[in-house]
Amino acid sequence: MTVDQYVAAEQTRLIEELCAFLRMPSVSTDPSRTSAVRDAAEFSAAALRRLGFKTDVRETGGHPVVIGQGPLVAGAPRVLIYGHYDVQPAEPLELWAHDPFDPVVSGGVITARGASDDKGQVYAHVKGVEALLASDGSLPVNLTFLIEGEEEIGSPNLAAFVEAHADELAADVVIVSDGAMVGPGIPTITYGLRGMTYVTIRVRAAGRDLHSGAYGGGVPNALDALARLLAGLKDAHGRVLVDGFYDPVRPLDDRERAAIASVPFDQDAFMADAGVTATPGEHGYTLLERLWARPTLDVNGLSGGFQGDGAKTVIAAEAMAKVSCRLVPDQDPRDVLAQLEAHLTAHAPDGVDVSVTAEGLGHPAMTPLDAPSVQAATTALRQVWGRDPVFARSGGSIPVVSDFQRLLGAETLLVGLGQEDDRAHAPNEKFAVEDYLQGIRVSAALLRALARPTA
Amino acid sequence: MTVDQYVAAEQTRLIEELCAFLRMPSVSTDPSRTSAVRDAAEFSAAALRRLGFKTDVRETGGHPVVIGQGPLVAGAPRVLIYGHYDVQPAEPLELWAHDPFDPVVSGGVITARGASDDKGQVYAHVKGVEALLASDGSLPVNLTFLIEGEEEIGSPNLAAFVEAHADELAADVVIVSDGAMVGPGIPTITYGLRGMTYVTIRVRAAGRDLHSGAYGGGVPNALDALARLLAGLKDAHGRVLVDGFYDPVRPLDDRERAAIASVPFDQDAFMADAGVTATPGEHGYTLLERLWARPTLDVNGLSGGFQGDGAKTVIAAEAMAKVSCRLVPDQDPRDVLAQLEAHLTAHAPDGVDVSVTAEGLGHPAMTPLDAPSVQAATTALRQVWGRDPVFARSGGSIPVVSDFQRLLGAETLLVGLGQEDDRAHAPNEKFAVEDYLQGIRVSAALLRALARPTA
Repeated sequence: MTVDQYVAAEQTRLIEELCAFLRMPSVSTDPSRTSAVRDAAEFSAAALRRLGFKTDVRETGGHPVVIGQGPLVAGAPRVLIYGHYDVQPAEPLELWAHDPFDPVVSGGVITARGASDDKGQVYAHVKGVEALLASDGSLPVNLTFLIEGEEEIGSPNLAAFVEAHADELAADVVIVSDGAMVGPGIPTITYGLRGMTYVTIRVRAAGRDLHSGAYGGGVPNALDALARLLAGLKDAHGRVLVDGFYDPVRPLDDRERAAIASVPFDQDAFMADAGVTATPGEHGYTLLERLWARPTLDVNGLSGGFQGDGAKTVIAAEAMAKVSCRLVPDQDPRDVLAQLEAHLTAHAPDGVDVSVTAEGLGHPAMTPLDAPSVQAATTALRQVWGRDPVFARSGGSIPVVSDFQRLLGAETLLVGLGQEDDRAHAPNEKFAVEDYLQGIRVSAALLRALARPTA
Repeated sequence: MTVDQYVAAEQTRLIEELCAFLRMPSVSTDPSRTSAVRDAAEFSAAALRRLGFKTDVRETGGHPVVIGQGPLVAGAPRVLIYGHYDVQPAEPLELWAHDPFDPVVSGGVITARGASDDKGQVYAHVKGVEALLASDGSLPVNLTFLIEGEEEIGSPNLAAFVEAHADELAADVVIVSDGAMVGPGIPTITYGLRGMTYVTIRVRAAGRDLHSGAYGGGVPNALDALARLLAGLKDAHGRVLVDGFYDPVRPLDDRERAAIASVPFDQDAFMADAGVTATPGEHGYTLLERLWARPTLDVNGLSGGFQGDGAKTVIAAEAMAKVSCRLVPDQDPRDVLAQLEAHLTAHAPDGVDVSVTAEGLGHPAMTPLDAPSVQAATTALRQVWGRDPVFARSGGSIPVVSDFQRLLGAETLLVGLGQEDDRAHAPNEKFAVEDYLQGIRVSAALLRALARPTA
């Protein structure tokens, strides 16, 4: 039985198993979801054990890491497949067409939180190995799965875990499927990822909330101060005004600008999908250059004062914002954190205290296009999709990719199985059934292709 | 038995009755509190009926108005006492030392939501009439109580109610106690109130929340846009930048600036009480001038995107702010609403929709210092407190004061019985027991004094 025949024969069960995974509300940032996060780890481990892999659920300082090791294949390359079983919060719930943790399969699409990011993609690899074993009876590489539970909170414990278990995890190639193709049916190898500095900013202006009648015009207002500080982080075109921010940014050369310009990209479809009527941003760069290869700063959350219906005439004593920067080579997320702190402290209005707390730091990453694993992946994607892959960068961040490069010395191969419009992190997240099944076929083909170049 | 003797003899019961009133969580802006609002109306009505007043709970388009009319006193002036039985929301509850609706009397202070604003002050008048009746056996004026339940949401139905019942409510003098003395033991007659324009601003920038990795740098961000819009409403010194805002403002003349400068005001105590280390504001005006006699703009609430613990890398599609302006003569709150709308629409970034909804409009008000009722109040306050009152303005807003002037042709007399540091609208609102008892004595003395000048 070939891999294709296996996938065709088992399709219904393959979808049902993914839905069972999606039913677990494994929101890693939410302390009330700890037991669901644990359930998703155990579910991942059970799936690996059914492949015959030696599997452990390993404790960390936070949520556990699932490790599964396949049988020894003497002389074959060592491959590590990385994914995550945790998901983003589903809020705001009222914008979902149904319960985000009760997946609906309809019209060729699976809708649920985590469907694409990343349960669907990592599970496609688990099932790809299952299909390969059904077809060939054995694996052509030394394969290890590493499935973590803290990707959506910046993987705070993973780098230390990888460092502590570097011998066990040693790999020639790390495969990461936690992203998107540039479009449906266009296989994509992503060679660059943005990094991130994510912070919580807290502003305090008074000892308590004050009546705006009695105090308005005479005291600092935490919300006014926060709005002014945030507005001062960028100019009207989105260029970041924080001192030193752009200094280490590697300029885009002509070759890369040409490569980006050649990527099929439908700006109208992008705008329609996002529901935007403008694509504002830094002057002097195309939209795709801004999305993939330029650093950004966005306010991700705002809170303070009276947020209910009606009116409350209060001057808030404190306010909070979430702010994140997407970073590109060679920005260092720790340097950006220090730059943000210095800028906000220097610009705090009189009488206003500002504190900055890091919520997540991730290094940007790039992979050489001439690496042997990239050639193998090109072959595998051509086999499954019947066309050559596109080479892209991504605006997203997978903090561990640079850790794998640094700590394991491995080549990292980013093969997104989803689509940009899968609504990762947003209401009504989805994953096309066809992308899931092709992902299973891609995983099997990749492992076969990787067995050859370094054998 | 004199009024003083009555208050001394009945003190314990007088406090207990107020506490029963404070136990009702009559938050007018909160739809889930409708029945508690109704309870507070019925409580007020029952208290007036016990005085022998002909009392009704009258329906409006919102919360009811309580009307109580005393016996006809032929040839005597007509006096209307206004107050409100509704209160501000108590949130954030975690900043209260105890349940805001379970009053605690300790150290000479009553602590509960509404203790000072306005249940304690309006109830002091009810009990003042009770004491006067106990002392004199009858009232010296034609007295009507009007106690509403929508003051904290801008009295949306009261002006129409007063207009529809102008004959019944006809008065020579309206007494309002819904404010503060300039300091403990300093009786105060307030001759100016600020008005208000309170709005909800909604910003929409995309069709849905977007992943900041996939979209960051290429789409409008509702939170960035909101911060930029709010920061643009004022300069760094708090001067409002909205076109036309200051045009109708009546300049402060030298006589009034001198009067304000002569008011006892302890800036260190003000700052310590508010917990602020600076008193920023418009250049060219003293702190008290800014608080009482200059218009302001404050952000009262901010909400949008991810507000939980940890990190969520989302670009929010929409965001909300509450903004209010305190107004002075001769600003018109409807004009300020239009100015705000025009400014925000004109400054909305490309691709960002802004909507402005009025949540409350109130006219500023001033009372002539040479009005006969002001002279009578001066006499009464001198009798009770043993010193001359101070003449002040207030930074707060009581929208109905200008309505009483306009619709009833009445002089309005603002006699605050509380203190500025009573924490109205904030956690741990309080009212001094002594201020409550003096308020009862002031009410009785006022009615006697008002009987004379126009008799």
